[in-house]
Order: sequence, then structure tokens, then C-alpha cells
Amino acid sequence: MSEPYNLFYWPLPFRGQLIRYVLAHVGAVWHEAEFSDIGAIKEQPVHDQPTPFMAPPLLFDPDNGFYIAQMNAVLIYLAEKHQLMPASATKRALTQKILGDINDVLDEVTLFGGRSMWEEGSWKPFVTQRLPRWLQIFERTATDHGATLEAGTMLGTDDLGLTDLATAALWFSMMDNLPALTPVISHHAPVVAALSRRVAKQPAIAALIAEQKANWGDLYCGGQIEQSIRKMVDEFGVD
Amino acid sequence: MSEPYNLFYWPLPFRGQLIRYVLAHVGAVWHEAEFSDIGAIKEQPVHDQPTPFMAPPLLFDPDNGFYIAQMNAVLIYLAEKHQLMPASATKRALTQKILGDINDVLDEVTLFGGRSMWEEGSWKPFVTQRLPRWLQIFERTATDHGATLEAGTMLGTDDLGLTDLATAALWFSMMDNLPALTPVISHHAPVVAALSRRVAKQPAIAALIAEQKANWGDLYCGGQIEQSIRKMVDEFGVD
Repeated sequence: MSEPYNLFYWPLPFRGQLIRYVLAHVGAVWHEAEFSDIGAIKEQPVHDQPTPFMAPPLLFDPDNGFYIAQMNAVLIYLAEKHQLMPASATKRALTQKILGDINDVLDEVTLFGGRSMWEEGSWKPFVTQRLPRWLQIFERTATDHGATLEAGTMLGTDDLGLTDLATAALWFSMMDNLPALTPVISHHAPVVAALSRRVAKQPAIAALIAEQKANWGDLYCGGQIEQSIRKMVDEFGVD
Repeated sequence: MSEPYNLFYWPLPFRGQLIRYVLAHVGAVWHEAEFSDIGAIKEQPVHDQPTPFMAPPLLFDPDNGFYIAQMNAVLIYLAEKHQLMPASATKRALTQKILGDINDVLDEVTLFGGRSMWEEGSWKPFVTQRLPRWLQIFERTATDHGATLEAGTMLGTDDLGLTDLATAALWFSMMDNLPALTPVISHHAPVVAALSRRVAKQPAIAALIAEQKANWGDLYCGGQIEQSIRKMVDEFGVD
């Protein structure tokens, strides 16, 4: 049995969740780095870091002593290692494209890591226009590749791949931890919402989510920006 | 001879420039979409778009009738097609990581697509702390892989690969079109600055840059945010 991976990410879902879905799905064992170690490695002088990087997530693979940062780089690294990438060149490219979209959605919902806080004037166009457009983009991708409310995958592959795990980690986490957003997601992307729920019900992923709920409750992205999202939902709703 | 690629990106360097460096390097012929066509395809209902996507860059490959959006997805697609990806799994992962870093730097220098404008209080920590740290990250990657002021590549590959082209497109464009930033770049990342200049001197890329200079001058990212960057440089400098 391999030694566990070491994941440096704060104890909350957000960008770490996509990596955890992949690790859980492939049956990998991983260690979640201590909170103090995450801050320490991030703040070290670049010269002293085990690998030069700006911010978590960072993954250490003990099989080859390799550190890799950047959410999408970690995901692709794991997907290549654990055979979760599509065989066709165009579907691999679409996997990359969807990971880029996911990264953008995560940036946008948190106003780029909480660089500013939500206000009525920014929240309303986000939940009524921008977020719906993102959802329509995901939905058309899924339905163009044959997914339905009952079955299928994002790119029409027979098995769940990186795209499905990442898509589900994005949208299921949002529905589960910020349930006020569920009607928006289900309305504009019913097939993607259903796929995300199917992925989240896979036993290894369901166990991961249950453990997180026990430890962290509904925590989503953390910090003042999570408070800001919850304030907007309470005060202005989603329509 | 193949039909030309069609690149949908505004007539300015920024995110489009990385794709153009790759296309030029591999000797591809490409068409730059008309300004009006870029806006039209971006604003179409998702259902009517040729492929569901949020924003340029978008590339059309006539060889297989394939549209691909998201800068990093376009780059990886082209690199796989034209043999610009490293052979080793860890170097492929580092390529992905560096593309993620590049995307973050492009976001940060433009305050995330101009969502706010630079002010003295944000500009000074950016040019004296954050940008230097990014540069140190690039520099350590290059020097860890054996690059010097005279020779070498970002990941120690024999030939220029996607990582080198993308890195050069990021930093050379910044030095060339916002020359006030050159001292910061040369100070914190002398090897990367030298590598970027070597890449930019490759004949196909040099020809691309010369044509852009003739048509667009020093235009960098365009819009109010470019004016804001230039105002900061003029008023507060880079130290």
C-alpha cells in the first residue's frame, strides 16, 4: 500500500473539494495538512519552499516525492496518474476548458478571494444573469454529450472522469452548503444538477461529504466573503 | 496546406498573446477574427453559440471543426497537437501549474479584468511585494531546471516547449509594452527575463511582435485598466 498523499488546503471545501473528490473516487488515502503547516509553507521565502508556489491547494505525492500546486494542475496530474482523462484529444481539451470555467466560477462567486464584499448592486446581476449563463454553459455541454436527468456524463464517456468529478464538486458543494442557490442551479442546469447529485452519492464521495459535514457543517469558502454571500442570500434572495 | 486557424480575441496582446506565440512558433497560419464577430459570438445565447463558452480567447481548428475556449485549454490543445508538451508526467504537471500561475498574474495585473481601478494603496504592495513574489516563483522554477542568463528552458527540456512560449509571452509582453516594469522583472527574475527575450527573438515570434507594434503600438491589455496601470507607473513608479 502506498503512503498517503499530503494535501495542503484549508479545512473547508471550495478549491480543495475538487481534489478530494478525485482522491476519494480513486480510493487514494490522503492526509490533510495541519492548519499551521499550510500557513507556514505558503509564507516561506520562495527559495525555501519545497516547490515554488503562491497559494494552496498544494499536493505532495509520496510515490515520487513530487509537489504540485494550482488546483487544475493537481487535478490533471491525478487524472493522468489514475486514468481519469478521456482518450480523445478534443475531449481532453474540453476537460481543460471546463476546469478553466470551474476556476472562473469559484473566483466569481467569492469576488476573487474576497477582494471586495458583495453588495445588492453586484449580487443581483450575478445571481440573475452571470451565474445562470455559467450554468447554461455547463448544461449545454452535458446535454450535447447525451447526458439526461437519469444518466450520462459531461463528455459522454462511459465512466465518470475528471470532468464529472470536478463539475460535481463545484455544483454539488454549492447546492449542499449554500442551499438557497439550489433553485438557480436546478432551473438553469437540471441535467448538471442531477449528474452532480449522482456523483456525490458514490459511496467514497458520500463518505467524504458526511465526514466534512460532521466536522465543518455548511462551511463553503470561509472567511468574510462567505458571510457576505450568506448575507446577500438572506437579504436579497436569488431572483 | 491546412486551412488557417481562426482566433477570436480582441486586437491586443494579453491573453491572446500566449496563443499567438504558440501558433507562430509552430508555423501555423491563423486568421484574427473581426472585432464585431468576437462581440457577436460572445453575446449569443448559449444555445446558439458554436460551442458553449463565456469569453475569448476562443480558437477554431478547421482540421477537425473543433472550437475550444479558455486560454489554458487552447494552449494545451495546441501543444498536444504540435508536440510542445514534455514527455515526463511531472513536467507535464508543472506545465499546467505554470499556466495556472500565468493566468493568475494576468488576472492580478488587470485587477481581474478591470473590476476595479488601481490606486496608490493597491499598486504599491503589488509592484513591491506581490509581483516580485510571482517573479521569484518563475525564477526558481527556471534555475531549478538549469536555465541560465545565456541558455536553457523553464523545465530543462532540450527544445522550447509550451511552458517557455507561455512564460515568454507573459513576461516579454509586459517588459515590451509596459517598459517601466522591466526593472522589477529583470531584478527578481533575471534568468526568466533573459529566456523571455530569447524566445521573443525567434524569427516567427519576432515577426509577430513587429506586426503588432506596427498596428497596435504599445497596447497591452486595453481598456480603462490599461490607462490605470499607466497612470500608476507615471505617478508612483515601481518601487
